[in-house]
Amino acid sequence: MSREHSLTPALRALLASRRTAALGTVDASGAAFVSLVPFAIDPGSASLVIHISALAAHSQNLQARPNASLMVADGEVVGEPVHALARVSIEVLATWAEPGSGLAAQCRATYLVRFPEAEPMTTLGDFRFVRLSLRGARQVAGFGAARSLSADEIAQALSPTAA
Amino acid sequence: MSREHSLTPALRALLASRRTAALGTVDASGAAFVSLVPFAIDPGSASLVIHISALAAHSQNLQARPNASLMVADGEVVGEPVHALARVSIEVLATWAEPGSGLAAQCRATYLVRFPEAEPMTTLGDFRFVRLSLRGARQVAGFGAARSLSADEIAQALSPTAA
Repeated sequence: MSREHSLTPALRALLASRRTAALGTVDASGAAFVSLVPFAIDPGSASLVIHISALAAHSQNLQARPNASLMVADGEVVGEPVHALARVSIEVLATWAEPGSGLAAQCRATYLVRFPEAEPMTTLGDFRFVRLSLRGARQVAGFGAARSLSADEIAQALSPTAA
Repeated sequence: MSREHSLTPALRALLASRRTAALGTVDASGAAFVSLVPFAIDPGSASLVIHISALAAHSQNLQARPNASLMVADGEVVGEPVHALARVSIEVLATWAEPGSGLAAQCRATYLVRFPEAEPMTTLGDFRFVRLSLRGARQVAGFGAARSLSADEIAQALSPTAA
């Protein structure tokens, strides 16, 4: 097994174990804005699903510029060093799910598998599901263990049938 | 005590307890890039200190555009909901510490108080200290508990003598 491939199980475990990500969008002035988003995984379409208020700043940014960055990092452990925490920064492209559409229903189903407690929020009028397609990624699995992944490689890593 | 003020101890506790942040920078194409950065707090100057490789993408982005976004979020707890996790998104302005300068020495001292284990990294030639001045923030302390803070208000929250 090559080193590149040995990082794939680590990436899959990271995305499966973490439920929140840092979403980076760009505002009208060209400045970055980072916010917290709970995310679900749709392995079938190699995408992530988020559920955000249309009134929130990140939503306005994503509507103007659908490309964004999403980072998922391992949790800090009290008393343990943090410099080599596993993380991945993913280039994503946002597609808004029109309320009532098939995409919205699919996103909702995917999202509620991970977040059943969020069901009441799905009835709020200003919230929308957004599918984030994965365009590439930079994975850091620890000191000296980093790689770049293409869209195909990250889709492969998310696939339930991947080795 | 007003509700606004009651969020200040929560903000101080969040920044004191977390050691890593999500840094959002903007690349040459205008796209956001989110990366993980360990950070230290310099309450005297109401700023944060990071230590990054000049070869890393976020460093190149910060050199071209010194304004960035930095998010600090509470840790996920297994079995507990994540939608109301406390977090703060801070607008920051980066100042690079010239190696050998007084600012570099001050940043190094601040950083090593929090990260003594990072001392060997400070001898690596391509790493630099960066001071992040705080220009404003958006704090979410939980469901329905959110506020915007000015630079003065966040400096006040970081001050060791704050109420």
